[in-house]
Amino acid sequence: MSVATDPIQVPRGLKNVVVTDTELGDVQGSAGFYHYRQYSAIELAEKRTLEEVWYLFAYGRLPTAEQLAAFRAEVAPLRPLPAEVRPVLRSIALAGATFHPLAGLRTALSLIGAARGLRPVYDQNPAQRRVDALLISAVTPTVLAALHRIREGLEPVEPRADLSAAANWLYMVTGAVPEAAKVAAIESYLVSTVDHGFNASTFTARVVASTGADVASAVAAAIGAFSGPLHGGAPDRALEALDAIGTPDRIDEWVRAEMLAGRRIMGFGHAVYRTEDPRARMLREIGQRLGGDLVDFAVAVERRVLALLKELKPGRELPVNVEFYAGVVMELSGLPRSMFTPTFASSRVIGWCANILEQAADSKIIRPIARYVGPPAPQPL
Amino acid sequence: MSVATDPIQVPRGLKNVVVTDTELGDVQGSAGFYHYRQYSAIELAEKRTLEEVWYLFAYGRLPTAEQLAAFRAEVAPLRPLPAEVRPVLRSIALAGATFHPLAGLRTALSLIGAARGLRPVYDQNPAQRRVDALLISAVTPTVLAALHRIREGLEPVEPRADLSAAANWLYMVTGAVPEAAKVAAIESYLVSTVDHGFNASTFTARVVASTGADVASAVAAAIGAFSGPLHGGAPDRALEALDAIGTPDRIDEWVRAEMLAGRRIMGFGHAVYRTEDPRARMLREIGQRLGGDLVDFAVAVERRVLALLKELKPGRELPVNVEFYAGVVMELSGLPRSMFTPTFASSRVIGWCANILEQAADSKIIRPIARYVGPPAPQPL
Repeated sequence: MSVATDPIQVPRGLKNVVVTDTELGDVQGSAGFYHYRQYSAIELAEKRTLEEVWYLFAYGRLPTAEQLAAFRAEVAPLRPLPAEVRPVLRSIALAGATFHPLAGLRTALSLIGAARGLRPVYDQNPAQRRVDALLISAVTPTVLAALHRIREGLEPVEPRADLSAAANWLYMVTGAVPEAAKVAAIESYLVSTVDHGFNASTFTARVVASTGADVASAVAAAIGAFSGPLHGGAPDRALEALDAIGTPDRIDEWVRAEMLAGRRIMGFGHAVYRTEDPRARMLREIGQRLGGDLVDFAVAVERRVLALLKELKPGRELPVNVEFYAGVVMELSGLPRSMFTPTFASSRVIGWCANILEQAADSKIIRPIARYVGPPAPQPL
Repeated sequence: MSVATDPIQVPRGLKNVVVTDTELGDVQGSAGFYHYRQYSAIELAEKRTLEEVWYLFAYGRLPTAEQLAAFRAEVAPLRPLPAEVRPVLRSIALAGATFHPLAGLRTALSLIGAARGLRPVYDQNPAQRRVDALLISAVTPTVLAALHRIREGLEPVEPRADLSAAANWLYMVTGAVPEAAKVAAIESYLVSTVDHGFNASTFTARVVASTGADVASAVAAAIGAFSGPLHGGAPDRALEALDAIGTPDRIDEWVRAEMLAGRRIMGFGHAVYRTEDPRARMLREIGQRLGGDLVDFAVAVERRVLALLKELKPGRELPVNVEFYAGVVMELSGLPRSMFTPTFASSRVIGWCANILEQAADSKIIRPIARYVGPPAPQPL
């Protein structure tokens, strides 16, 4: 778009371009550290519940015991499937030959936004926007679990007001009240995935929010970006590598073959961390607490991959990333593989919503320009 | 996100920041001119059909007669409502107390994307991506018209293969085969709104496409941005101003009162054009060809607003914009006001899709960074 002021040239893909200020958190890649507001995300994941961290994102501080009780009471009625979406959910779940949980979630949230008449964020005050954000965050796990169960030929399971958000997730997916150890494991995972710096889906949510659109529009857009192959966040793929290896005695043979063929080993390497991914370290420990052959096998594979990388690609650092042990922890917690990425999305929606609310307070549209590089215009028709 | 390279500071909202190269077109604001590829958009709107311009965006050149015939045959079967969405469309249309056509479109396209199993653009070759883009563009008017008719208590009307895209639009909305003069008027409007430089919804579509997500994800995201109040594109609001004035003798009184109260006069002023909006000029002429009291009234209002602006706000240029006469033309063409913005969206989807295909060929994720400005981390829990 040709305007009076000179166009500003920046690196491709807006790499390293600062698009906004945020108080929500950051990733310190060289330090192997990331944080939610002023707190270590890993420490929160190890010590706090998902509701406490959700409150931290929504209200800007950790809750007191009273605030937490009030917050639980505030979100509990937002969890059940809204009446408007119930009759349609079956069609959404069963549309198409293949199950696309994220596309189903996108469709359902889009419908809920319309049915509830969510208003543009710029027409609302901060408290009204937060009500919409809590609704979308609260209903997302319920929608994802219900779509899964319908697709599996099962009846959806209603959320239980007496269960925590993490326990409800396992309960609504599996239909059984989960063991405390599994809840603790999944709760840590869910807290650790609420946010992670400024990724493409978070940016998408903020771009849509910057037009003043409603919260459901912005979250639906973020889900679309989240589904893109370059976004990352597919913990099932790392587990498929473990399947492909099969048994401990075949690790070296398989890893060598993959590396010599120049293929990427799923679950290793990260765009930001130069150290071990702090989420991977935490999830390895959680997996080891749950115990069993799978986690021992995963640890053995990690050890051999790192050793063989040293041998075959000296100087190339490819530490294990979050996906590798995320898949292990989810499998040990009883989640089916088709629900690994949805599990990630079920808590990331809290981060998207916090970013939407922060963007809405800015009230400046995000609208860069393009440079026309085609033939000179106008040419005669 | 802290990385080795220094963060790049740019103006708020990425204003004037070049995010991509494009061959699709541009707006030359100071010249009052915009173009699609190398052709004047207004000249195309006056001389070419919507299908020819659609082809121009999809294939990069204007079609020969043979190519146009083949293209018509290619898109005709993509127009009817897909079977998967038929049983759900009623629930989508009737969800909520208020009709939100864009939210309904977003939901339906999201569902169609899932049902058809649209693949990530990065997993496809250019021809495969184009098939998906043509499907989404072709079905969008059908979905919008059907949602409207269901909401009005009417049966949806199937598109007719013997009618042009523009004629089908009026036919599917009103249920009657439209007069040639109305088709010509709406066809010019639809061509003129396919694209318009780099706006927020177009940017959103490209951000989502840059993750490699499928075409439906990117278009659904664009619709969300398009629905935001800062995006613009609400031709019904300008018509509401005409309603508020009521009769020609009340123009001055009303306009003076609005201006003295410091309120914006809907339909005047544009972020990019410093001259008259070229679309406004074309639509005024189209309106005058259709004739009648409404267009005469609109012309009188325009004249008085400009005169009073000179008097009351000397030096402040607020020429009439596209929305002012777009509303007039749509009203004269027999479209109900609730379908004004959907009419805009029904052709803008062609521009979004062309941008998605161009972005997909780039294969570089658009991912800027945020600057953390909260309290230093980590603080003890």
